[in-house]
Amino acid sequence: MSRKPMVRPGGRSARVQASVHTAVREILSERGRDAVTVPLVAQRAGVTPSTIYRRWGDLQELLSDVAVERLRPDTAPEDHGDLLSDLTAWAEQFLDEMSSPSGRAYIRDALLGDPDGSYAGQCSAYAAEQVDVMLARAIGREENTPGVETAMDRVVAPMMYRILFRPAGLDAAYARRLVTELLDAGEEHPLP
Amino acid sequence: MSRKPMVRPGGRSARVQASVHTAVREILSERGRDAVTVPLVAQRAGVTPSTIYRRWGDLQELLSDVAVERLRPDTAPEDHGDLLSDLTAWAEQFLDEMSSPSGRAYIRDALLGDPDGSYAGQCSAYAAEQVDVMLARAIGREENTPGVETAMDRVVAPMMYRILFRPAGLDAAYARRLVTELLDAGEEHPLP
Repeated sequence: MSRKPMVRPGGRSARVQASVHTAVREILSERGRDAVTVPLVAQRAGVTPSTIYRRWGDLQELLSDVAVERLRPDTAPEDHGDLLSDLTAWAEQFLDEMSSPSGRAYIRDALLGDPDGSYAGQCSAYAAEQVDVMLARAIGREENTPGVETAMDRVVAPMMYRILFRPAGLDAAYARRLVTELLDAGEEHPLP
Repeated sequence: MSRKPMVRPGGRSARVQASVHTAVREILSERGRDAVTVPLVAQRAGVTPSTIYRRWGDLQELLSDVAVERLRPDTAPEDHGDLLSDLTAWAEQFLDEMSSPSGRAYIRDALLGDPDGSYAGQCSAYAAEQVDVMLARAIGREENTPGVETAMDRVVAPMMYRILFRPAGLDAAYARRLVTELLDAGEEHPLP
């Protein structure tokens, strides 16, 4: 990530990034991961291979960058009126997306290009931001609200751990149970 | 993993596996990950490259196999006389080993060679076995004992998630807190 310069929206740099990302996503979906090479991406994006090497360093960094961009949420989590409903809907959707074949492939790519953890850290930051939006709404409604790190440990971490290490039997009921247990535990230690 | 034949201890197959694994570990520690190639491993292990390709398929599968073997616990967790002490000591050591640079490299390798999840699944199975040994001891002592999947979700998953995605600030106090919260939650719903 250190190689990647700041991107000014609308500038040449942003246009290069957009066309290269689009080229990678198209090749991934048409021909699969093993078909993605820097010369092929460059050709389809209309840039030179050296532009890609200069900016991303190597193919794995480029794939990680595309993965993180793909894992970035488009919108704030929906407001269903209470924390249990908000977190449940969000966790079900998160598990569904991340445990899909393409979700798993993107997570692996984010972890891979990443000796220093910056891509994976960005994925986790996206999830934490989404959770934080829901918790802030709950505080606004004066609901009993756990902290964001507790919610990450109790809901996001178990889902991601199982997606990566123990994928058998993952379903929406599991996501719902994690949320319910997080909020039940909070009920036993109500805020003042 | 499908390519790997059953290994008879002491047979030629076991000797090949041992010498190839040793060669990989030596090259990793002397010269780093980027230096590991199949011809170099073959030369040092005294086998032909085709023996390695036949058995492991490619370099990444070999690295994953070595990583999983390296992550296999040598001994049962120590018995400290009660579940809180057992789990706390185990979790502190697990976090310390897995969050070290070599631990993180092995986890990444286990995740990598692994489109079908079998290497990563084996790592998780090792952790679950260790946790299960401690829980079975606690049941034998008639302690209030959570289930193994709950312990995986509450203790192992958050540590692994943070090692991979949010490594800042991980320390033994974090491991201890996860164990304490797991057992405190159990106290509030005592077994009959």
